[in-house]
Amino acid sequence: MITVHHLENSRSLRILWLLEELGADFQVKTYKRNPKTNLAPEDYKALHPLGKAPVVTDGDITLAETGAIVEYFLDKFPNSTLRPHIGTPERIPYQYWMHASEGSLMSLLVLGLFLTRMETAPPFPIKQAVQIVTKKIRGFYHTPSLTSMYEYMNAELSQRTWFAGATLTGADIMMSYPVEAAAGRAGLDDRYPNILAWLERVQALPAYQRAVETGGALEAM
Amino acid sequence: MITVHHLENSRSLRILWLLEELGADFQVKTYKRNPKTNLAPEDYKALHPLGKAPVVTDGDITLAETGAIVEYFLDKFPNSTLRPHIGTPERIPYQYWMHASEGSLMSLLVLGLFLTRMETAPPFPIKQAVQIVTKKIRGFYHTPSLTSMYEYMNAELSQRTWFAGATLTGADIMMSYPVEAAAGRAGLDDRYPNILAWLERVQALPAYQRAVETGGALEAM
Repeated sequence: MITVHHLENSRSLRILWLLEELGADFQVKTYKRNPKTNLAPEDYKALHPLGKAPVVTDGDITLAETGAIVEYFLDKFPNSTLRPHIGTPERIPYQYWMHASEGSLMSLLVLGLFLTRMETAPPFPIKQAVQIVTKKIRGFYHTPSLTSMYEYMNAELSQRTWFAGATLTGADIMMSYPVEAAAGRAGLDDRYPNILAWLERVQALPAYQRAVETGGALEAM
Repeated sequence: MITVHHLENSRSLRILWLLEELGADFQVKTYKRNPKTNLAPEDYKALHPLGKAPVVTDGDITLAETGAIVEYFLDKFPNSTLRPHIGTPERIPYQYWMHASEGSLMSLLVLGLFLTRMETAPPFPIKQAVQIVTKKIRGFYHTPSLTSMYEYMNAELSQRTWFAGATLTGADIMMSYPVEAAAGRAGLDDRYPNILAWLERVQALPAYQRAVETGGALEAM
């Protein structure tokens, strides 16, 4: 039996959506975050040495890392249309966005999250000193990198309905969490209309809506 | 013809190594970093909208994002042993480390790199104020996350020679750059002997050595 160990408001919403798309038989065990630290509770951390969401068990197998979990289930459901076959043109953007989702986009968003915390959380005058430094990092690296990525995503989605082509794939599922986070508070706004339109298409999908019903909506990180 | 657009001292060394392992026919075009900014030169940035290494062209196709490039060439060379077949036990750790490499480990290393820069580059007394804040981020998030990851990698490599099992795979190629970076200056030391022994095995491989000869050795980031 497949069990999704669902940590509220986390990357694991994508796995619920994937399993809904696949029509898989699965159960969900929900874990609440520690209200004080916002971290996973101890019984969640015990599931996998890294203690991070998502974690899925399938019989004796314990799976972690969203991209790897998506590929595992696409191996398990070989007739699904969510993974383009080898040799098709859709295969190339599929692989690109499968990896760019966490490797490039999410990595930038996490850095941005820490920069924002550093700029807002400390008391004056520490905050002021920190802002001199974070402003430099934003200026020479973070803002241009994130802007390039949004512009690239927006241009790609001017040519296609979904990230890999005319059909929804695992690449869209991978991209959903960072795009929701980016739209929530990392400057992804109406300068990038094709990305926002894609997100609306995602949120309108019945399988996505069933996943949100089960797992709860994401709050922007 | 496959062309690796090799930016010196970058993630693209992995692609040279992969192509050497596959026995692929390819050419290398090397680009020097701007000595002042350490960024890619303008003709490199023109190759792909994101302007980041690695970029590979194969005829009309332009490829970016290391994980996606690795998967592209493993699709192109289906008889290679570098990607475990669907349904084999090696397939699961293969997918895990393919995605965890950039998605989890490298993401933490990049955050650590910026924390270190913030702690060392600014003049006194800004530096002192910044260190109050970076110390907190290290304490509650960065150091425990990185330590858990190193411990997990070390434990996995106590059970197997390579990240996915008894045979070298694309997962090892993906992991090589972050592990070299971690050993260079992110606290990956002899507390983690299995990881260091794995890195020695990597560096002893003839195909890896040919890649270094072509692309130049990595300097720790």
